[in-house]
Amino acid sequence: MTPVTAPSASSAALKPARADSQDAFQRLMDLVAGDLESVNRLIADRMASEHAPRIPEVTRHLVEAGGKRLRPILTLAAARMSGYAGEDHVKLAATVEFIHTATLLHDDVVDESAQRRGRPTANLLWDNKSSVLVGDYLFARSFQLMIEAGSLRVLDILANASAVIAEGEVLQLATANDLGTGEAAYLQMIHGKTAALFAAATEVGGVIAAAPEAQVQALKTYGTALGMAFQIVDDVLDYGGASATLGKNTGDDFREGKVTMPVLLAVAAAPDEETRAFWKRVIEKRDQAEGDLERALELMSAAGALAGAESRARAYAAEAREALAAFPPSDLRAALEGVVEFVVSRLN
Amino acid sequence: MTPVTAPSASSAALKPARADSQDAFQRLMDLVAGDLESVNRLIADRMASEHAPRIPEVTRHLVEAGGKRLRPILTLAAARMSGYAGEDHVKLAATVEFIHTATLLHDDVVDESAQRRGRPTANLLWDNKSSVLVGDYLFARSFQLMIEAGSLRVLDILANASAVIAEGEVLQLATANDLGTGEAAYLQMIHGKTAALFAAATEVGGVIAAAPEAQVQALKTYGTALGMAFQIVDDVLDYGGASATLGKNTGDDFREGKVTMPVLLAVAAAPDEETRAFWKRVIEKRDQAEGDLERALELMSAAGALAGAESRARAYAAEAREALAAFPPSDLRAALEGVVEFVVSRLN
Repeated sequence: MTPVTAPSASSAALKPARADSQDAFQRLMDLVAGDLESVNRLIADRMASEHAPRIPEVTRHLVEAGGKRLRPILTLAAARMSGYAGEDHVKLAATVEFIHTATLLHDDVVDESAQRRGRPTANLLWDNKSSVLVGDYLFARSFQLMIEAGSLRVLDILANASAVIAEGEVLQLATANDLGTGEAAYLQMIHGKTAALFAAATEVGGVIAAAPEAQVQALKTYGTALGMAFQIVDDVLDYGGASATLGKNTGDDFREGKVTMPVLLAVAAAPDEETRAFWKRVIEKRDQAEGDLERALELMSAAGALAGAESRARAYAAEAREALAAFPPSDLRAALEGVVEFVVSRLN
Repeated sequence: MTPVTAPSASSAALKPARADSQDAFQRLMDLVAGDLESVNRLIADRMASEHAPRIPEVTRHLVEAGGKRLRPILTLAAARMSGYAGEDHVKLAATVEFIHTATLLHDDVVDESAQRRGRPTANLLWDNKSSVLVGDYLFARSFQLMIEAGSLRVLDILANASAVIAEGEVLQLATANDLGTGEAAYLQMIHGKTAALFAAATEVGGVIAAAPEAQVQALKTYGTALGMAFQIVDDVLDYGGASATLGKNTGDDFREGKVTMPVLLAVAAAPDEETRAFWKRVIEKRDQAEGDLERALELMSAAGALAGAESRARAYAAEAREALAAFPPSDLRAALEGVVEFVVSRLN
């Protein structure tokens, strides 16, 4: 794999086979494999609690369920690509994973979810109380970890990300069943819910490496755009198959009446009052009957809503790839370009 | 009020009239009144959210309900008593109040409470989701504020306090209805739940003032002991009247089967198997009938359980007062001594 051909190969093939893209993610994992092991050890160490055994029980359930460790891997790769030779990026990567895990625990309470990563959620196995409090514990632990890295700028980035994430989640509550949500409000919401942590994950990698400011900003742009693409792809997949790889069932968002990009586009293209009334009933009132999901899919297809959402995801993916031009070609840069393909390839 | 006579007067009168002690708290408030106004302005400013109006709605409900602002006042007083002349203590005081408010929001979800400070709780007025997420937002905002103060040692203290608080809350879940909870586990739990934030509130005041290490440690001891006394008094009051001032009804802990100090002491003194079976039924199984609370109160009275808990609270109060000897006499020191009396006087 040469640093120059890999990116051009991946941008030439806009829809590479799934397997190729998974290889791309695997390549990135291989490049940071040693660091990632250190992250996993640190996570296992810091999620323990001397006094409250319930804490590691709950976190182990989530941590063992796996997840791709995408966010911490991004931090590790961003730091190394920026020439970082120290070890503090391991702490920051673990921090990012702790924030992510804490968010998942609280999300499951808020969404009243029963499944996460194909396993029963913590709120179902234990109770909502444990999910709320263990989430708080992980937030506090993440905070201790990032302080150890000793950089006030890093702290600032992660604190701001935490505030934007929480704000995005509250915004999601407010817009959840509201068809009046515009595309701007939806993008704002998924920026908070998803892209803010991706952006912080990559930006802190550059900051800890004391990279030139232009590269730090490029990493932030990369993370933001990758996160936006990731979430829009997720929202499209909820209406479009390939659900097995997500541990999520097609139609979950529909059943919850969530206003996502495909719904927004379909509603905007609604040809008549009857169609608008349909969307109002199933999304705003959540009054759904047999056949409604199929009707929604037909309307989306007629409106080109899924294709429209896909094209927006691909535009963000392109933005993410372009941001990497701030770095000289390298194996790590090629692998980070590959991850963009990996995220979008889930649509294929 | 001279700095020398005030402390000796308050330690001479172990059970001053309630009114006198409320005066003592008022004196402390008066001494930091200007700073406290700055804290209130900062809180109002930072709890806002550009994008999610639900956030200030929920926080305003809690903030306007009042509360005594005891914790931020302690931070302000500790900093000024340590000779601090800057303005960053205002940020730290607001930080402490945000952490406290976030904890209350999550507590109400966990306890399924319907009332807080005599008003319906946020989880009842809005929903559990809002309480969880707005609590997360306040944690993140507190984190941004403390970073602005720019001291890694302060950050470390507050991060550790946050972890201990969350751990204490999880520990409370585990011990809630377990009569096997020993006094040590109970003390550990209330240390996390209450004393850790009092300790951090006072300690950071000394740290931001760059006080000598002995004084910083004395402030930490003061805050810890005051917090322990505060929580034990709360637990005693739940079985003993004066409930109007708490916005809490006598017997709430009993109905929830909470294992608190009075229960622990009464169970330890149970004279026979039948009495032990009674406690097992009402606390562990929460199988309660009419007259059970009265029976519990009789058993506590016979065992001297409330008096025993009170004497432990007074021992912590004495420890808090003694810690202040690390500081030269001053109006602020006298007022901080007065606050100890204020906390214990709720028993009268």
